[in-house]
Amino acid sequence: MDNRAIAVFDSGLGGLTAVKELRKILPGEDIVFFGDTARVPYGTRSRETILQYARQDIRFLLKQDVKFLLAACGTISSTYPTHEAARLPVPYTGVVSCACRAAAKATRNGKIGVIGTSATIRSGSYPAALRDMDPRYQITSVACPLFVPLVENGFFGDHNQVSELVIAQYLEPVKAAGVDTLILGCTHYPLLAPMIARFMGPQVTLIDVGRETADAVKLALADLDLLAQPGREGKATYFVSDTTESFAANADIFLGEYAGGRVIQIAIDTY
Amino acid sequence: MDNRAIAVFDSGLGGLTAVKELRKILPGEDIVFFGDTARVPYGTRSRETILQYARQDIRFLLKQDVKFLLAACGTISSTYPTHEAARLPVPYTGVVSCACRAAAKATRNGKIGVIGTSATIRSGSYPAALRDMDPRYQITSVACPLFVPLVENGFFGDHNQVSELVIAQYLEPVKAAGVDTLILGCTHYPLLAPMIARFMGPQVTLIDVGRETADAVKLALADLDLLAQPGREGKATYFVSDTTESFAANADIFLGEYAGGRVIQIAIDTY
Repeated sequence: MDNRAIAVFDSGLGGLTAVKELRKILPGEDIVFFGDTARVPYGTRSRETILQYARQDIRFLLKQDVKFLLAACGTISSTYPTHEAARLPVPYTGVVSCACRAAAKATRNGKIGVIGTSATIRSGSYPAALRDMDPRYQITSVACPLFVPLVENGFFGDHNQVSELVIAQYLEPVKAAGVDTLILGCTHYPLLAPMIARFMGPQVTLIDVGRETADAVKLALADLDLLAQPGREGKATYFVSDTTESFAANADIFLGEYAGGRVIQIAIDTY
Repeated sequence: MDNRAIAVFDSGLGGLTAVKELRKILPGEDIVFFGDTARVPYGTRSRETILQYARQDIRFLLKQDVKFLLAACGTISSTYPTHEAARLPVPYTGVVSCACRAAAKATRNGKIGVIGTSATIRSGSYPAALRDMDPRYQITSVACPLFVPLVENGFFGDHNQVSELVIAQYLEPVKAAGVDTLILGCTHYPLLAPMIARFMGPQVTLIDVGRETADAVKLALADLDLLAQPGREGKATYFVSDTTESFAANADIFLGEYAGGRVIQIAIDTY
């Protein structure tokens, strides 16, 4: 048993979709979130810059006395090296492996689509993990660099014409490949999921990386005997690198009914 | 006479549209450019964060032994305070005042539109400068937060369907207001100018802030006796905060035939 917090971090606010899932399935856990709102997005930057930012994020979170690190960001998960993660003083997970396990479970025809930021797709992280499970998978990966700006600027909702057009442009080759499973490889994408689902059709299963990873975190905590005391009420604390006002204006979109908690600004470039 | 370089800086690569103009009209001048590609965009961040970033950019450029500072960025120009600029060791200009003078000259009906990033429009910098010139101007300002991501992700060209749709959504109220002059208040926007011009119609004059400011810099250098020796050939040096590869992939779009020059990566957060 361990009442320390779970640390969840992201380039921006997309990771809050994973926080929402965690608060739903682990209501007794404290959560410390960091969103790098002063430097979002990561997914269009170079590997070197993403690594520098991810290391600063982790150094900051390790000072918060946390028991588990979750990179709730497709870009960080695809870039931060496994051998470096293995040397961290607390267990760490990204979203890639959990999402790939869920996709492997869902696919019937072995054709799997992956969408993510430019950095995520460039890294080849999802195809590598999927091929480790079964080398016969036919994988179609497409970078969707405008999706994060669309979400961060409010271009979602049920029938947003601009987003529908961008979705059709980016996803045409994925649809043409006949995939029956599509990994939404970035924690911002659940906000576009209804439109993506409509474009891809009802025969395609969408994998929400935040939700899958939250389930995996629950199992890992149980395995490691790190779950919080039963019956206690968990609280969430949110750290951001830009002002707290910009967080307040947007966080509810991602958190829904699980909103609430202290919000604190920090200078991430000093870590 | 002064052969030191002109410093030009921007949140990202949009400021290169001003560099292109400067190299065209001042071929003898050396130019030192800084684009904060590891932290772009600025225009969706808070005033405090933009100020911190702008001060770091300026501290870096002042170490390059430059004779003039040009903030070729609507967001920085709208945020960096005049009283702070006045204390800098070299002359400084942003793009706001030059663009407003050009708009005042162009308008016939006194109805002027202004588009820019969220931070630029929130600051009210363009309307304030215009009303200083003539309080009777009717000004319609609209934030276009998706324009920078559209340009940085290649959604331009002559008839880009996505950009045409976003342009129509953002600019409808500006068109409805009956403006005859529209300030493109961000140095990224010239790449969308053909589509913006088509939407607004031939009766509307577009003001390109980079071009107007380049002209103003030439006049200011002449006034201050800071022009380079006649007949010399100026060279450009480009500093970026993300890797030089990402610069190489995109710079030509902005610079056109004026491309070329050394490209160097620096750690801007150490300034």
